[in-house]
Amino acid sequence: MLILAMESSAKSASAALVRDGELLAQSFSCSGLTHSRTLLPMAEGVLDAAGVKIADVDCLAVAQGPGSFTGIRIGVSAVKGLAWAAEKPAVGVSTLEAMAYHGLAAGEGALVCCCMDARRAQIYNALFEIRGGRPERLLPDRAIAIETLLPELKKYEKPLFLVGDGAAMCYNIFSENGLRCVLAPSNLVQQSAWGVAMAAGSVEPRPGAELQPVYLRLSQAERERQARMAR
Amino acid sequence: MLILAMESSAKSASAALVRDGELLAQSFSCSGLTHSRTLLPMAEGVLDAAGVKIADVDCLAVAQGPGSFTGIRIGVSAVKGLAWAAEKPAVGVSTLEAMAYHGLAAGEGALVCCCMDARRAQIYNALFEIRGGRPERLLPDRAIAIETLLPELKKYEKPLFLVGDGAAMCYNIFSENGLRCVLAPSNLVQQSAWGVAMAAGSVEPRPGAELQPVYLRLSQAERERQARMAR
Repeated sequence: MLILAMESSAKSASAALVRDGELLAQSFSCSGLTHSRTLLPMAEGVLDAAGVKIADVDCLAVAQGPGSFTGIRIGVSAVKGLAWAAEKPAVGVSTLEAMAYHGLAAGEGALVCCCMDARRAQIYNALFEIRGGRPERLLPDRAIAIETLLPELKKYEKPLFLVGDGAAMCYNIFSENGLRCVLAPSNLVQQSAWGVAMAAGSVEPRPGAELQPVYLRLSQAERERQARMAR
Repeated sequence: MLILAMESSAKSASAALVRDGELLAQSFSCSGLTHSRTLLPMAEGVLDAAGVKIADVDCLAVAQGPGSFTGIRIGVSAVKGLAWAAEKPAVGVSTLEAMAYHGLAAGEGALVCCCMDARRAQIYNALFEIRGGRPERLLPDRAIAIETLLPELKKYEKPLFLVGDGAAMCYNIFSENGLRCVLAPSNLVQQSAWGVAMAAGSVEPRPGAELQPVYLRLSQAERERQARMAR
């Protein structure tokens, strides 16, 4: 199965073309340029680099959240639009599950701790263990305060392999609090479309119209509206 | 230091932009299309994706070999030409050392065995150990028959983390011969320009005119010429 995947949940953005688990092409950028400018040219670039047309793709995939509200919206909207225009099915995957695939290289039994900066003193977090060559989920996707997360993670007796745009921040805080952890190297620390395609490989594709962003929290606009309504 | 790196030593090709060890952008393709068609557009793509101009780059880097003679020639020539036109210094690094950086995720103490398909029943091989967050060389770059390599590798008592375009082939042969080894996951198995930039980070840049390919073996044309001369 040939999957065109996109990832735009945080500062980085990427597009990848993966056939049956093999990476054919990937374009990654972590520049601070807006994803609405970079994401679709990168998708076009990977198709060109692999000599493939959108019509040859079997399925589209996207990181549907959690993450930056704007980033998630851009990724999900781009894939919904492309699915409609190209008449392709689509898969939305957890941003955190997708980045957990970056822990495969840490080896069987490794604990992969996914850390995204969720602002407001929280991180988006999930925990996985590499079993049988894939990440198996130990903890669900959630927005959580780091002080709440620390005692939970202390139960695990193995070092944590940290991935995600919040991994460097968490590495400092976790280390100061006595947790053993390893920061993923610079080619693996940011989330990637390769991870999205890997996570999508075992999911049944659905019509693109059904794709929905997963924010895990209310947006700032919705929080302010609710506060106004309550007054 | 901002490095623009290129890798085209085997079937895959890639270009990456790395600032002080941080990956800003990378474009990777493993499609079978010729590198003379894909490499420079990918280099242009990473500059665009990062909003950077060639004039902003401090140094160019390239995998100078060993590898496919045609691939190495394309990479070295492209970087020499670009270094001349843009008046930038350049660094040539060992293809095998560059891919050894893919083993960083395997963790401190991991043995990284670099395997490139050298045809003619040989592989291009080198061995590294991850120490202090970087690959330290244990064995030199060489073209070696797999049956000669096997007893050498059996001396090491840790599992081997296999990277490179010949890693899957070596995984099968090594496993059949009782060596413990792990195949790098599909996002790390092929060599990358990120690895080239990482290996180049600690090397003093030189004028591009001094860049030379490193083949380790005579080319087929040279071998045939020598055979003709000998007759």
